[in-house]
Amino acid sequence: MYVERVENIEEKDLHNGEEIIKTLKKVLISEKEGAPNFRLRHFTIKPGGHTPWHSHDWEHENYFLRGEGVLVTEKGETEISPDCFAFVAPGEQHQYKNTGNEPLEMLCLVPITEDNPE
Amino acid sequence: MYVERVENIEEKDLHNGEEIIKTLKKVLISEKEGAPNFRLRHFTIKPGGHTPWHSHDWEHENYFLRGEGVLVTEKGETEISPDCFAFVAPGEQHQYKNTGNEPLEMLCLVPITEDNPE
Repeated sequence: MYVERVENIEEKDLHNGEEIIKTLKKVLISEKEGAPNFRLRHFTIKPGGHTPWHSHDWEHENYFLRGEGVLVTEKGETEISPDCFAFVAPGEQHQYKNTGNEPLEMLCLVPITEDNPE
Repeated sequence: MYVERVENIEEKDLHNGEEIIKTLKKVLISEKEGAPNFRLRHFTIKPGGHTPWHSHDWEHENYFLRGEGVLVTEKGETEISPDCFAFVAPGEQHQYKNTGNEPLEMLCLVPITEDNPE
């Protein structure tokens, strides 16, 4: 059993000035903690920021903690806010954007697969 | 892609007056929404409530949203509060207890396996 606080986890700045803007990532639970099947990650997207517009062979399961934004897919934009959750299917093009004035905080879970290294 | 609000999901009362006290469950993402690998569930444990003291062959990954409580294992009690997260390994005896005056709200993710039907 392992319990920790999000504030104590090291944060990685993913901003590259191109497809990833003002986005920070914390890996909360992964193989390192003994997770056998899926990883729990925490993302903060600052105002004006977004994740890449991309797709991959694995799904996302999301829970939105704080802030306002949109989940973009080829079907358009869907608003996200605290206590929303989302499922993005494998192969689906997607992007998370902060459309508000506060940090958008969200959980993003992915399966542990050979082609999806942490 | 599927986005929904927690408040719109049907809640099941698990209270049985014995090993499960004042505990409510919502299944947010499962096979029904096309999830291939793991399920996202939301639990509310009311003041004085707790989940069963039990173990099973699959892990839990938890994120604590609101309220105060403890995660009990054979090593004792560990305090949980908002923005804590936990990993409970497969086979580990565990129980979640609300020790506060407000509902304890938490996410609990489990792998989709043959011996773990929803």
